[in-house]
Amino acid sequence: MDPKPVFHTTRRVEFGETDMAGIVHFSNFFRYMEAAECEFLRTRGLSVKLDFEGQTIGFPRVAATCDYVSPARFEDLLDVAVSIERIGGKSVTYGFEFTRGGALIAKGKVTSVCCRAGRDERMESIEIPAGYRARLQA
Amino acid sequence: MDPKPVFHTTRRVEFGETDMAGIVHFSNFFRYMEAAECEFLRTRGLSVKLDFEGQTIGFPRVAATCDYVSPARFEDLLDVAVSIERIGGKSVTYGFEFTRGGALIAKGKVTSVCCRAGRDERMESIEIPAGYRARLQA
Amino acid sequence: MDPKPVFHTTRRVEFGETDMAGIVHFSNFFRYMEAAECEFLRTRGLSVKLDFEGQTIGFPRVAATCDYVSPARFEDLLDVAVSIERIGGKSVTYGFEFTRGGALIAKGKVTSVCCRAGRDERMESIEIPAGYRARLQA
Amino acid sequence: MDPKPVFHTTRRVEFGETDMAGIVHFSNFFRYMEAAECEFLRTRGLSVKLDFEGQTIGFPRVAATCDYVSPARFEDLLDVAVSIERIGGKSVTYGFEFTRGGALIAKGKVTSVCCRAGRDERMESIEIPAGYRARLQA
Repeated sequence: MDPKPVFHTTRRVEFGETDMAGIVHFSNFFRYMEAAECEFLRTRGLSVKLDFEGQTIGFPRVAATCDYVSPARFEDLLDVAVSIERIGGKSVTYGFEFTRGGALIAKGKVTSVCCRAGRDERMESIEIPAGYRARLQA
Repeated sequence: MDPKPVFHTTRRVEFGETDMAGIVHFSNFFRYMEAAECEFLRTRGLSVKLDFEGQTIGFPRVAATCDYVSPARFEDLLDVAVSIERIGGKSVTYGFEFTRGGALIAKGKVTSVCCRAGRDERMESIEIPAGYRARLQA
Repeated sequence: MDPKPVFHTTRRVEFGETDMAGIVHFSNFFRYMEAAECEFLRTRGLSVKLDFEGQTIGFPRVAATCDYVSPARFEDLLDVAVSIERIGGKSVTYGFEFTRGGALIAKGKVTSVCCRAGRDERMESIEIPAGYRARLQA
Repeated sequence: MDPKPVFHTTRRVEFGETDMAGIVHFSNFFRYMEAAECEFLRTRGLSVKLDFEGQTIGFPRVAATCDYVSPARFEDLLDVAVSIERIGGKSVTYGFEFTRGGALIAKGKVTSVCCRAGRDERMESIEIPAGYRARLQA
């Protein structure tokens, strides 16, 4: 994995995450990625939706991709490696690698854009605040 | 079914709604109920979250129950009958009956409380507005 | 809570489990219950789907209910208490209590029936095997 | 959109598909894609899991991607255009375009590999059967 992971966590596959093929439904890997990202952010005192320096900011996703190499099954304990692929002015791209006992299960990427929550639930993209960026790169 | 249904719809079982037992995961019936309720409400010009007579109201769920009689499988076309079990001062209880070709699949109930959305995403329970109630009972 | 819990776990609310009302979607509590049940069963060397003494058994749900007392929000850390409400000949009923900092969030019950997986994905209800029951009551 | 869509359907956004940002959770677009694919396949007498000419075949996903252009909200009626991007020897790639009133919401792709279900839920990749391919290209 390149760049080097900034965070590792594990994820136990739940019964309700499988489908009739007996494997984790492919859409759930995107939920796994988001949960791992949030878990990483918590270690930095951050989140994907938070009040930060006087404004409410969020990170709606603008792109997501996943390659599925080998199926994951009920009760599998997956290792999830999180890396920061790129931090742009307004966006951040995380990379995720799912393995089980060292064997690759899936790889994915998610790109989010920093937004300020305005009136009427509208989101306006903004530069990632310097304080947020500093903690992300710590 | 008692009381008499006020609305009928159908629901096609999707692949991602099944689990490794080859049947619809039990939690999804609660999603089916909510979707059928919303579809019914749309026929009355209502919704579970809407601006109504100058305020934003919602109907958070306070109780939900389901009895599973026979499994539903991928691509099954389910019939969903919606009935209004009870309209209280602040709450409404819907009943749902799922059948496939006349055979009972599941029966459920959901009770919601009418709330006004206040500041900070806090919900305060209120009397169901007379205009909303009138359309519900039409 | 009565009867006395046999197991405690925690659950962190994920972003994708919330809805536009800003709270955990009610259907997700049923997923939380199942995950807690499975986690409990693993501590006993059991599961909801497993090869046990020469046959494949599963526990399809026949009833589920939940009462929602107070909303749960993104990143809340919920305590989940699992109790065994009743073990019948073929069925088992679990009780679940969700709290946050001691405050009640929700209470639910799920009843499952022990089934043997037969040909064509058909399930046939059977007596809970003595060995399974013994571990459950340990 | 290029290539030309082979199928159009619509999708009503459900309450439980939104998240606390007030928009459809990004993972749900992958469920929408799969449902649209299955709906298309049904018009050709096909499916993603079926008994076909004496064997059980399925199409586990090997890659999925989505670009999110504009948020979708509760009760939005989305148009979904399905195109066949590529049919390889063993794989098929579908393209999906989500619009609302002509405005682009999201674009995605999903690639699946044709597999024969073997013993123990194991999947073995095979050439797409000629009969299946013929109906797909009809």
